[in-house]
Amino acid sequence: MNDFVFGRNNVYELLTEGKRSVSKIILMKGMKENSKVSQIIDIARNKGIIFQFLPKEKFTQFKDYSHQGVIAYVSPVKYLDFEDFLEKEKQYKKVIITDGVEDPHNFGSIIRTAVCAGFDAIIFPSRRNATINATVEKSSAGAINHIDLIMVNSLSTIVDKLKDNNFWIIATDIRAKDNYYDIDYCDMNFAIVMGSEKEGISNTILKKADYRIKIPMLKEFDSLNVANAASIVIYESVKQTVQKSGNGV
Amino acid sequence: MNDFVFGRNNVYELLTEGKRSVSKIILMKGMKENSKVSQIIDIARNKGIIFQFLPKEKFTQFKDYSHQGVIAYVSPVKYLDFEDFLEKEKQYKKVIITDGVEDPHNFGSIIRTAVCAGFDAIIFPSRRNATINATVEKSSAGAINHIDLIMVNSLSTIVDKLKDNNFWIIATDIRAKDNYYDIDYCDMNFAIVMGSEKEGISNTILKKADYRIKIPMLKEFDSLNVANAASIVIYESVKQTVQKSGNGV
Repeated sequence: MNDFVFGRNNVYELLTEGKRSVSKIILMKGMKENSKVSQIIDIARNKGIIFQFLPKEKFTQFKDYSHQGVIAYVSPVKYLDFEDFLEKEKQYKKVIITDGVEDPHNFGSIIRTAVCAGFDAIIFPSRRNATINATVEKSSAGAINHIDLIMVNSLSTIVDKLKDNNFWIIATDIRAKDNYYDIDYCDMNFAIVMGSEKEGISNTILKKADYRIKIPMLKEFDSLNVANAASIVIYESVKQTVQKSGNGV
Repeated sequence: MNDFVFGRNNVYELLTEGKRSVSKIILMKGMKENSKVSQIIDIARNKGIIFQFLPKEKFTQFKDYSHQGVIAYVSPVKYLDFEDFLEKEKQYKKVIITDGVEDPHNFGSIIRTAVCAGFDAIIFPSRRNATINATVEKSSAGAINHIDLIMVNSLSTIVDKLKDNNFWIIATDIRAKDNYYDIDYCDMNFAIVMGSEKEGISNTILKKADYRIKIPMLKEFDSLNVANAASIVIYESVKQTVQKSGNGV
C-alpha cells in the first residue's frame, strides 16, 4: 500500500514536509481531537486539501493500521535518481545503504535514525529489501519525507559508482576485526552498509567495502537488531563530527 | 500470554539458557525442518522434555504469532528481587531502567541490546510499562533469558535505593545540556534511564538523576525511536569500557 499515510504524526509530517502530494484526508467522526488534529485541519484548509469527517465504519478496511482516526491519500513515494543525487552540491555526503533489510519496522527505524543524524540518503535495492510502504512510513515516524530515497536495481553497480565518486564504503560485518569506533568518519563522503537480518551483507558488496567494522559483543549472544546496530554506527559518526566541529548542537 | 514461547530461535535460546522450565514443545507436522529444529529436538530428548508433532490445525489458535512451527509451553517468567540483585557480587553493575516504555517491540529490543552489551539487569515498573510477554520475548530474540529482570512497584523508591548503593543515575532527556558522550561510564555502577515513547522520563525520576544527557539531533525532526536511543547510549558505555580496558573483545 503505497498510497495511504496513517496516523496523526505521520499525516502532520506529510503535510508540513510536502514532498508528496496529498489528494484527500479523512478523519473519524466523533473521535477525540487533539492539537495535532487541529493543526492537520488548519494546514489542509490553508493548502486547499480536501478533508472529510467520515463515520467509524468507513475505517474498517484500514483496521490493521494504527491510523488514530486520521488517514491521508497520497501520491506514490518520490524516489531520487542516483545520478541526480551525485550531482547535488554538498561538501560531504553521508549515506545509508541497506542490503536486504526485510523487516519494514527495521527499515523504517533505520530511516528515522538517519534523518535525526542529518544523513543525506538511503540507498536500497528494489529486490530482497523492504520497499517504502505504509508500515515503513509509520515506523520511520514520517522520516521518509525528510531524506532522499534512492531505489536501485543493482547495489553492486551503485557501490562501484559511489567509490568512483570519492565515497568510502563502510560495511558492518560481525566477523570484522575493527570496531565501529576505530575509523574516522570526518571530512569524507561515506556510505554505511547494513545487511539483512538473517545473513548480513552479501559477499559481492562486502568485497567492495573499504572498511569492515563490527560492534563488539560483551556477552555471547545472538546479535544486535539491525536497526539498533545501524543507530550505534550512525551515531558514532555524528559524535565524531560534532566533536571535531566543536559544535555543541 | 506469559506461558508460550514462539519461534525456532526463541525456543532454542530458552532450552539452552534454561532459566524457565519448559513443560512441553509442539512442532508442526510436515514443516520444513532445519538444523535449529533438529537441535531443539535433540535438546528436548536429552532433557526429557515432552515434544509432539501436531497437525497444522492445532496451530490455528497461535496464528497471530510468528511461531515458525515451533512453540514451547513454559513456566512464567522469573523475576529477580531487587534486594537479591543488590547482593550479587560484581565489581561494577550496569543496569537499564525503563520508565514507561510501552511498545513491546521497543522493550524487547532494548533488552536485546542490553544483553549484547553485557548489562546486568533491566528494572521496570509494574504499571505504565510493557510487561514481559511473548511479543517482548520474541523482539528480544530470546534475550530476556540472559539478563536479570526486576519488576518493581515504585521506580522512585528503587532509584533512591540504587543511589544509596553507589549507583549513578543517568537520565536521557531531550532537553538536557550534555551530550551522551560527555560523561565517563567507566569504573562505576550506573543505571541508564529511558523514558516513555510519548513523554520521556517522569519528572520524579528526572529530578533524582545524577546526570541528564541528550543525543544530538542534526536535523530538526521528531526524535529517535527509544530502542535506538537506548542502543546509542548503551554502546557509548561499551566503547568507553572496551577502550579503557584495552580489550579488543
